[in-house]
Amino acid sequence: MDNKDFDKIIIGIDPGTNVMGYGLLGVSNGKPVLIAMGVLQLSKLEDHYLRLRRIYDRVTSIVDEFLPDEMAIEAPFYGKNVQSMLKLGRAQGVAMAAALGRQVPIAEYEPRKIKMAITGNGAASKEQVAMMLQRQLNIDKKDMPQLLDATDALAAALCHYYESKKPLTSGGSKSWKDFIKKHPDRIVNS
Amino acid sequence: MDNKDFDKIIIGIDPGTNVMGYGLLGVSNGKPVLIAMGVLQLSKLEDHYLRLRRIYDRVTSIVDEFLPDEMAIEAPFYGKNVQSMLKLGRAQGVAMAAALGRQVPIAEYEPRKIKMAITGNGAASKEQVAMMLQRQLNIDKKDMPQLLDATDALAAALCHYYESKKPLTSGGSKSWKDFIKKHPDRIVNS
Repeated sequence: MDNKDFDKIIIGIDPGTNVMGYGLLGVSNGKPVLIAMGVLQLSKLEDHYLRLRRIYDRVTSIVDEFLPDEMAIEAPFYGKNVQSMLKLGRAQGVAMAAALGRQVPIAEYEPRKIKMAITGNGAASKEQVAMMLQRQLNIDKKDMPQLLDATDALAAALCHYYESKKPLTSGGSKSWKDFIKKHPDRIVNS
Repeated sequence: MDNKDFDKIIIGIDPGTNVMGYGLLGVSNGKPVLIAMGVLQLSKLEDHYLRLRRIYDRVTSIVDEFLPDEMAIEAPFYGKNVQSMLKLGRAQGVAMAAALGRQVPIAEYEPRKIKMAITGNGAASKEQVAMMLQRQLNIDKKDMPQLLDATDALAAALCHYYESKKPLTSGGSKSWKDFIKKHPDRIVNS
């Protein structure tokens, strides 16, 4: 499928300073479809700036290749200590900059919220999230990644897709008229 | 003076989520010279992403206008809480991304280190730092900014300049031969 075959493309990012996961979700005929997912291994790079640059470059090139309409980021709000939060903030910042530089709006979701949206359980394991993604998106077992950072990123994108389908919240519909206009598929002719 | 009149240009950044300061320092005939400084007011923007985007856009446009060779960032390593560190990390991250995207190398300095380099006192006030900068760079009193985030950023750039003049440390000279080649001005013909 070509980019233009999708009504909307969402890029999901699970940013970290050791591994960054990314997933691309397309919406075709009102259904979410896997486009691509993968990880960026950063642990071999000793230099902190080199890691940040690698994240920025890769996210920029993914954005340029797939032209996503929206970005969803998995963003924990709590951390062990201020040091790790500063590092995480930087990793998030450079990934966000790649989207901001291309006018791609960003939404962020807490890990718990993403797990809840995908599995119905906010405390689900990464494996459970991966399994549910595989089912919900009909992904071939052989196409499932080894590293669960990729599925975590894809889960952020799918969570964002579900959120944007909700009426009167993130979807931002101001009135029923707007809502019906935005969601013609929801009109039941009975 | 035009950009090409300088042997080197250093951009200093004091990133924050309320105010971001920036300063541009040129090196001309082995001497540091003020090129420009200013602040970016962010507190009026309620949206967190809008603030990050404003930082990214402004730093990118400054980098594109002045073509700095290096970036120096004032980077506190300790913070009140994980929340504020995550926000600070993001602000640093988007500012860094603007440099990383243009292949500008980054150096970061703790506030204490910068104050020490400029005033000889790691616990100096922002006003003292501003006053010493004014003297060391012969800045006209009327050109001094109201907001000390600008002078803080310029101080980061000047600190980086002093650091890069030090032999065998940040300068990265591997041998005396290298050092002499890099610093012909240091050879005393007596």
